[in-house]
Amino acid sequence: MVALIDANARGVWIISATPFADNGDLDLESTDRMVDYYLGCGVDGLTILGIMGENTRLSQEESIRFTARVVKRVAGRVPVVVGVSAPGHRLAGDLTRAAMDLGAGGIMLSPPLGLRTEDQVIGYYDSFVGEIGQAVPIVLQDYPPASQVWMSVATINRVIADHSSIVVFKHEDCPGLRKLTRLRADEAAGLRRRVSVLTANGGLYLMQEMRRGADGCMTGFGVPEMLVEVCRLFHAGDVEAAEDLFDAYLPLVRHEQQPGFGLAVRKELLRRNGVIATARTRAPGPALDATDRAELDTLLARLARRLAEMGRTLPTAAQ
Amino acid sequence: MVALIDANARGVWIISATPFADNGDLDLESTDRMVDYYLGCGVDGLTILGIMGENTRLSQEESIRFTARVVKRVAGRVPVVVGVSAPGHRLAGDLTRAAMDLGAGGIMLSPPLGLRTEDQVIGYYDSFVGEIGQAVPIVLQDYPPASQVWMSVATINRVIADHSSIVVFKHEDCPGLRKLTRLRADEAAGLRRRVSVLTANGGLYLMQEMRRGADGCMTGFGVPEMLVEVCRLFHAGDVEAAEDLFDAYLPLVRHEQQPGFGLAVRKELLRRNGVIATARTRAPGPALDATDRAELDTLLARLARRLAEMGRTLPTAAQ
Amino acid sequence: MVALIDANARGVWIISATPFADNGDLDLESTDRMVDYYLGCGVDGLTILGIMGENTRLSQEESIRFTARVVKRVAGRVPVVVGVSAPGHRLAGDLTRAAMDLGAGGIMLSPPLGLRTEDQVIGYYDSFVGEIGQAVPIVLQDYPPASQVWMSVATINRVIADHSSIVVFKHEDCPGLRKLTRLRADEAAGLRRRVSVLTANGGLYLMQEMRRGADGCMTGFGVPEMLVEVCRLFHAGDVEAAEDLFDAYLPLVRHEQQPGFGLAVRKELLRRNGVIATARTRAPGPALDATDRAELDTLLARLARRLAEMGRTLPTAAQ
Amino acid sequence: MVALIDANARGVWIISATPFADNGDLDLESTDRMVDYYLGCGVDGLTILGIMGENTRLSQEESIRFTARVVKRVAGRVPVVVGVSAPGHRLAGDLTRAAMDLGAGGIMLSPPLGLRTEDQVIGYYDSFVGEIGQAVPIVLQDYPPASQVWMSVATINRVIADHSSIVVFKHEDCPGLRKLTRLRADEAAGLRRRVSVLTANGGLYLMQEMRRGADGCMTGFGVPEMLVEVCRLFHAGDVEAAEDLFDAYLPLVRHEQQPGFGLAVRKELLRRNGVIATARTRAPGPALDATDRAELDTLLARLARRLAEMGRTLPTAAQ
Repeated sequence: MVALIDANARGVWIISATPFADNGDLDLESTDRMVDYYLGCGVDGLTILGIMGENTRLSQEESIRFTARVVKRVAGRVPVVVGVSAPGHRLAGDLTRAAMDLGAGGIMLSPPLGLRTEDQVIGYYDSFVGEIGQAVPIVLQDYPPASQVWMSVATINRVIADHSSIVVFKHEDCPGLRKLTRLRADEAAGLRRRVSVLTANGGLYLMQEMRRGADGCMTGFGVPEMLVEVCRLFHAGDVEAAEDLFDAYLPLVRHEQQPGFGLAVRKELLRRNGVIATARTRAPGPALDATDRAELDTLLARLARRLAEMGRTLPTAAQ
Repeated sequence: MVALIDANARGVWIISATPFADNGDLDLESTDRMVDYYLGCGVDGLTILGIMGENTRLSQEESIRFTARVVKRVAGRVPVVVGVSAPGHRLAGDLTRAAMDLGAGGIMLSPPLGLRTEDQVIGYYDSFVGEIGQAVPIVLQDYPPASQVWMSVATINRVIADHSSIVVFKHEDCPGLRKLTRLRADEAAGLRRRVSVLTANGGLYLMQEMRRGADGCMTGFGVPEMLVEVCRLFHAGDVEAAEDLFDAYLPLVRHEQQPGFGLAVRKELLRRNGVIATARTRAPGPALDATDRAELDTLLARLARRLAEMGRTLPTAAQ
Repeated sequence: MVALIDANARGVWIISATPFADNGDLDLESTDRMVDYYLGCGVDGLTILGIMGENTRLSQEESIRFTARVVKRVAGRVPVVVGVSAPGHRLAGDLTRAAMDLGAGGIMLSPPLGLRTEDQVIGYYDSFVGEIGQAVPIVLQDYPPASQVWMSVATINRVIADHSSIVVFKHEDCPGLRKLTRLRADEAAGLRRRVSVLTANGGLYLMQEMRRGADGCMTGFGVPEMLVEVCRLFHAGDVEAAEDLFDAYLPLVRHEQQPGFGLAVRKELLRRNGVIATARTRAPGPALDATDRAELDTLLARLARRLAEMGRTLPTAAQ
Repeated sequence: MVALIDANARGVWIISATPFADNGDLDLESTDRMVDYYLGCGVDGLTILGIMGENTRLSQEESIRFTARVVKRVAGRVPVVVGVSAPGHRLAGDLTRAAMDLGAGGIMLSPPLGLRTEDQVIGYYDSFVGEIGQAVPIVLQDYPPASQVWMSVATINRVIADHSSIVVFKHEDCPGLRKLTRLRADEAAGLRRRVSVLTANGGLYLMQEMRRGADGCMTGFGVPEMLVEVCRLFHAGDVEAAEDLFDAYLPLVRHEQQPGFGLAVRKELLRRNGVIATARTRAPGPALDATDRAELDTLLARLARRLAEMGRTLPTAAQ
């Protein structure tokens, strides 16, 4: 029984790392532990092979092998969304078909680098959906700092309206708060059907975005338990408690949001927690040096102290 | 008696806004109040006509008139650094000469958009210093997200070594923490003379950067008193207290760091404090809408509560 | 009697250089000679203060002084279009008003660097036309390699439809041939009123663009007589002769199309013709070195030979 | 007996297309015909899986299969260089090893999108050569418009000096003529050992570049026979004849140099010549429409006429 992502998606859809062995091969045993760990944190879904999953550094064959392992281990408990963004329809389409055959719950697709006008964006989704058909649930990723493609609200509305299979809008433009408000206002005005909005950017503006109508987040963060608890508190109506908890973690959230560098921090935290065997990324990826590690120790020690003041515990090994 | 910036610069060099009237003219009366306000916050210096000062939207004549007013009002109590970055040497050079004649304490210069290689960066500073002479103290600004010019540590070392008038390195590459550590290590190894390092990016990584060797910051922020107090505590050796205070303000720091948008928040805070007459920016600049203002109210109310828990007070009008 | 640019503009609207003296000042005597020279070449209009006019390296005061001199010298014989593109409405608006008061025939405006979405482009023209009023004829410049702003045909149609004062579309997207064809097809289909389309890019695709519906060009080139004669032949129906002449000059056209560098070639040709006193550009602008000059000699000698084969003469001093 | 590329490379190294069937699969039968065709044109080498080879739209498995087919068909008559540029060392390294095992004559490697400083470029080549070893001949590709990485001459000299396996510099910066002259001057001054310099950009500045010291070209063009004959004439000392022939083809060379679009023209010419079955590119790739095809007919008809005037024949089917 495959779980698909749909327009009711909410809560935390963790953007997953991709574990490697020291020789650079996929580490599938660590992958199993990582899946168990994410599920144990209480996430509502997994998204693999995003930017943080180092997707551009994997071959198509590895992407499929990794997807198969994750989907099998998740075993239908939550949907698994697979990032398929690629420079061409052929690679993206082949990965889509393979992932859905394996039991994935949907795909995530960003417009590729090189699209220039919004007409081209509209044409891109038209032709890709034409290729994969309308049965595959799609997360539309809007991440201009990486894609170098900027979409007006009007274009986003149009793309969503044209393709009923687009069920989630992954919001990570920055500044993007007003965009989110306009997307929700256009829905309220009946301009198009409602979709789920999940925010990203490492959660840097998570509380403000949920106040403006986001349903949760689809992002990576070194302590996923925080994201889960913040969303739970918020959806239970305890907004100030959610804000308090979020603010306690904000120094770490911000530390991880350094472009490119954050992945090294997240893998290091997975390693310290005994989840993955090494924090290695594929070259030319980031790695912590001794100064970085000491700095992370300091950040975590301060975070643990702050949580203790609030009667809470840091669910992560501090060193 | 003119105060010049030098390699011993430390503490807070506030990046100043430029006040406009509702008709878009320079508002020089608000400017006087703003100078008084910044000095009252305890800043160590002022930097005007940076990006946050909307420098590209002023004519050369306005830039000089504004500089004259600020320098006169400061009256030598702290140095005033003038941002002169421009697409050509002629405009940058004329503004430099005018500013120094008026009593400025130095200039801030970023490589202009369009330089491609690091050889070109080296050539750029060579030719510009050749034009203005070696008596004008220079703040070398390294802000790649705006300039689209990336400089290796080796290039920065070379430019500083070649020009004794470069006395401050304004650090705002991101990720940039390792760069800062290497710059200090190269100094310690005797590769070049010591310069002051002042960080920016709205102070987003201020504490980590001071731990890695920064002397303070040259940045804008809506509550300058926080920057001053954090630097004071840090330099007095009370690092944890500095961190605590910084973390309390971090939600606001991060809110202001939304590219382009932050200026509207800062001007709104200046307006709420009675410093400037309106929060207006020059078109096509940012402005808060009703949702943004309510969101800011929420952020400030939470900040005030958090400060109260710490036995502190928010020095800014919350609404 | 001021000549205004309108939707019937055709032929050659030369993008003018800005002459400087060796000390970097505006050279207004060379400016007079340059105006006489361009008019002697038979151009249909002048466009000053474009990118090739080094507009970003002039102060507002210099821009106005230069405009005044050119307009006075032209004395109404052809319209003078003034490039007013600037980072803010204030500077662009002030220059617009000053230029029109002096007798300019219209303005050229590109969306500024930093606009991201096409909604923002639409908003930009709305607010700027709101500021300057609807009486000023506008050349809408679409030059993405410089502006980093990409506009769909739908957006261009919308902006033109919304503002009756936009009378010319300056076409310099690349690849852009299909865009031009679609713009003309949309007009033919009655989607919006007809405007003049003038192409640029140094004329690199001039013949193909005229075959696809362009009315002429608004560009710089070192031998303006060629542009004038090619357009004259084309509009007289002698298309193959126009193509033959264009092809003879193509090696030089292509040589001048090297980004940034071409301006140095054009100023050198003006200098060799005795039009301007020196080929100097404002720093950090391009300059020919000895190898470049020898290479230009070779190109011109070959061009002169090819023209002689065709029974024509090179109207420019070869050395 | 495998032919390797070395520092004596000269003449024409054609950048090969990748033929696809109408269903988007690799078309290996067309590939054989294409290899025969290129060799029949007299090229000195083949370079496959460059940007024009749509390398980013192939899976690793397809890249290897295509390489195998080409290398087998070439059968050692000329070296085959394989483009291995990829976002990560793993993919680039695996493809390198596979290609060399299959009998390739070397690899072409551009710094990947995302490198910012020239230190990072130096580090990138250091670590990659560390991974693949020093026995694989490398073509260092310098193509900033695509890679968004700019390298100073000093950096290029350093990278070449550090790695004896770098034997060819593929020159396609623009403007780049002065860079080429400086590279040759630095060699002449003994700053580093000599490498072959092959130019690209569709050959747009081929004659000027050979006059400045290039050994030939590594580029795609729809009529490879022209490149071969121009290089032959030039190396035989008949420079003016080489220039004349080049200039005749320049309208087509320039037409193909429209970014992204040119590939559709080249594939169409291969199709018209009976070399490949269809001109199809992989989505979202370029395709000619009816207007584009008629325009190409016109260009070719004019080219055939011009060649006839020179006593030459167009070696390509005009329709």
